Amino acid sequence: MTSQIPTVVSRSTLKRLPLYLHVLEDLQRQGQEYASCTMIAGKFDFGPTQVRKDLEVTGAEGTAKIGFKVSALVKDIKEFLGWHNAHDAFLVGAGNMGKALLGYKDFDKYGLNIVAAFDQDPKKVGTKIFNKEILPMEKMANLVKRMHINIGIVTVPAEFAQGVVDIMVSVGIKAIWNFAPAPLQIPEGIILENARLTQSLAVLTNKLTMNFDKEMKG
Amino acid sequence: MTSQIPTVVSRSTLKRLPLYLHVLEDLQRQGQEYASCTMIAGKFDFGPTQVRKDLEVTGAEGTAKIGFKVSALVKDIKEFLGWHNAHDAFLVGAGNMGKALLGYKDFDKYGLNIVAAFDQDPKKVGTKIFNKEILPMEKMANLVKRMHINIGIVTVPAEFAQGVVDIMVSVGIKAIWNFAPAPLQIPEGIILENARLTQSLAVLTNKLTMNFDKEMKG
Repeated sequence: MTSQIPTVVSRSTLKRLPLYLHVLEDLQRQGQEYASCTMIAGKFDFGPTQVRKDLEVTGAEGTAKIGFKVSALVKDIKEFLGWHNAHDAFLVGAGNMGKALLGYKDFDKYGLNIVAAFDQDPKKVGTKIFNKEILPMEKMANLVKRMHINIGIVTVPAEFAQGVVDIMVSVGIKAIWNFAPAPLQIPEGIILENARLTQSLAVLTNKLTMNFDKEMKG
Repeated sequence: MTSQIPTVVSRSTLKRLPLYLHVLEDLQRQGQEYASCTMIAGKFDFGPTQVRKDLEVTGAEGTAKIGFKVSALVKDIKEFLGWHNAHDAFLVGAGNMGKALLGYKDFDKYGLNIVAAFDQDPKKVGTKIFNKEILPMEKMANLVKRMHINIGIVTVPAEFAQGVVDIMVSVGIKAIWNFAPAPLQIPEGIILENARLTQSLAVLTNKLTMNFDKEMKG
């Protein structure tokens, strides 16, 4: 990694980097040792120039005509995304989405380690999901401090999301990954990232509906 | 709905509409009957002009100074997104993510009805998850046709994703919602929407890492 990394990188670039990583991991599975921007761009509907520009922010250095060493590039992207170290996280809401995230094995590849889950349902408290303990909400404040937890994952229903986020912020959580379909207010300085499935679904169902309309008219 | 709806709407607009819907549902829970663009915009970091422009595509009609009737606006947005009718979908990959989606109760609000799941693991086939049957892959072709299924949801590991998508396309699936962290190739005319958690996670962990770096340096 070079030292001239810009502090603020566009959201679009940040969201493309994991895609490159997936392509590179695919190439690694195939035993490919080097990759060019053109090779990576071949999987997307934007060109190699975009790929080159995006990769620059990671400080990765390629060689003319040969390209990037795949293993080095994977390392540089992971470092840039903060995926080389595990970030410990707490999850609140041990419903279906919460359970899925607790059981999602690939998160360790992406620097995320969900260490425990919290729920307000006494029937869930004390049980284990994928070997992770479900704890009562009252224990969160103490544990966030003791275990230096920075990330809070919200998987409660929409109407409880703001309440959970308020608690998270008050106990010292610095970054919130929200899966609840609800608008959230957070104080300045706290990072909020929404992983809203409904937004992705909206694009899909709208396009599908538009295609049907076209077929009906055509 | 008016008849002057543009056929192609930007992806950004499409992704903001569900957010407005979440705000409106929140207002409905609070018993609010009318909502203005300013009121909706108050929950976001963009202004009422953006909200007004986005809402225009749905054909929703507001009244000056009073705003939109919340129930009518909810209906117009849902219609525009294709969420007023249920779209039947098949899911392939009954692992943790697959299970979560099968159990996610809110999908019916968003026009998605996952009717069955498929898996190649003989131990899973024949079992039920949230009352939905897990079927063998060989049955998909026949059932897609018989049940007029248009949407395929991919929740298999990255290395199997392209194979599953190829099967889906060959049996007549028209729109694919992909949860696998893998680059996918699809023929023209097929809709592909990626719901990649890793992209959202990348933004979160990068910002958190950057904040730490700043603290260390400052």
